Amino acid sequence: MADEVVLLDFWPSLYGLRVRIALAEKGVKYEYKDEDLMGKRSPLLLQTNPIYKRIPVLIHRGKPLCESVIIVEYIDEVWKDKAPLLPSDPYERAQARFWVDFIDKKLYAPSRKIWTTKGEEQEAAKKEFTEVLKILEGQLGDEPYFGGDRFGFVDLCLIPYYCWFYSYETFGKFSIEAECPKFIAWVKRCEQKETVSNALPDGKKVLAFVHEARKMLGVG
Amino acid sequence: MADEVVLLDFWPSLYGLRVRIALAEKGVKYEYKDEDLMGKRSPLLLQTNPIYKRIPVLIHRGKPLCESVIIVEYIDEVWKDKAPLLPSDPYERAQARFWVDFIDKKLYAPSRKIWTTKGEEQEAAKKEFTEVLKILEGQLGDEPYFGGDRFGFVDLCLIPYYCWFYSYETFGKFSIEAECPKFIAWVKRCEQKETVSNALPDGKKVLAFVHEARKMLGVG
Repeated sequence: MADEVVLLDFWPSLYGLRVRIALAEKGVKYEYKDEDLMGKRSPLLLQTNPIYKRIPVLIHRGKPLCESVIIVEYIDEVWKDKAPLLPSDPYERAQARFWVDFIDKKLYAPSRKIWTTKGEEQEAAKKEFTEVLKILEGQLGDEPYFGGDRFGFVDLCLIPYYCWFYSYETFGKFSIEAECPKFIAWVKRCEQKETVSNALPDGKKVLAFVHEARKMLGVG
Repeated sequence: MADEVVLLDFWPSLYGLRVRIALAEKGVKYEYKDEDLMGKRSPLLLQTNPIYKRIPVLIHRGKPLCESVIIVEYIDEVWKDKAPLLPSDPYERAQARFWVDFIDKKLYAPSRKIWTTKGEEQEAAKKEFTEVLKILEGQLGDEPYFGGDRFGFVDLCLIPYYCWFYSYETFGKFSIEAECPKFIAWVKRCEQKETVSNALPDGKKVLAFVHEARKMLGVG
């Protein structure tokens, strides 16, 4: 069955990590193919994701799926007997989808500007990033996870950001824990799960990558 | 049961129309509340959508849901016995979600620029808009609907754009049918459905609104 599931990914990808954690939660074995996104995209990536030409792409029984959230929902539907990620109640499912959508609409842009801009633009990005985390802290409330008692869809889609925090803090010269202690307490709970701690690359390794990415983008 | 479902909406909204067509497909009765988005937002809208403060909001048994695609999936899950919108097969569901996500990521921005910009920016927007419709024509292929034989999730999320076409053509000075005849043939098939034709406002009424909106935005 090892050739049944193939993942085209790039190791520091926030989006690819969602898929890796989802597959780990479900105990699905797969072939991992790292795309060198600093270099040329592979013919397989161009063929399986002609619209966006980007990772992650999950190929299941020869059929490709694109866009991380859509892939994670697919994984949850196909391997439904183990570790359910979305709630079963329709209203709770809608709420989980709302918060994942919020993360995708509001968190990525400022997080990227923290390490690609300077001065006022960077300060505004840090402020916006922190405000989004505080809204998420408010949504978490006193629950251990966004999924309530259990690590779920929102937790899984959000936790990959953590391995970039060391880079955000290094370039942004600020402490996320000082600003959002409840958020970091949630991170630490997630990290107790092997599916998470085994998947997330070390913050220092991501920082080394970010240094390279800044050079390539001409902002280093 | 009439007070069970309340929709906060704005009549020309591409996003609100998705929800209205979905409720019509399911035969759900509801109370419609038109928000005057040219004026002040209602306390009920601010209370039920504190994050985005925008329509559509569906309130079902007192509990609010926001963001059109999430609302449509919720409606499909709750009223599941009539007119299924998403396919039942997980791969087909993922593909339907992919194309709706593509529409939201790629179609809205250029469509808006057609009536809010001029000159080179407007020409670029028309080109981009037409390219996106051509990709959608390619995806439709020789099927009657994006949902295959049946009007489904992608059809429902895309068809509201049609009532704005007359405005795009008026301000963009181009013919969408000349560029994308297969797309317009699909529109005409969708319009044969009463749930669609009853919901979509007349193109000339939308044009009158767009004239007002351009004045408000200072581009008229």
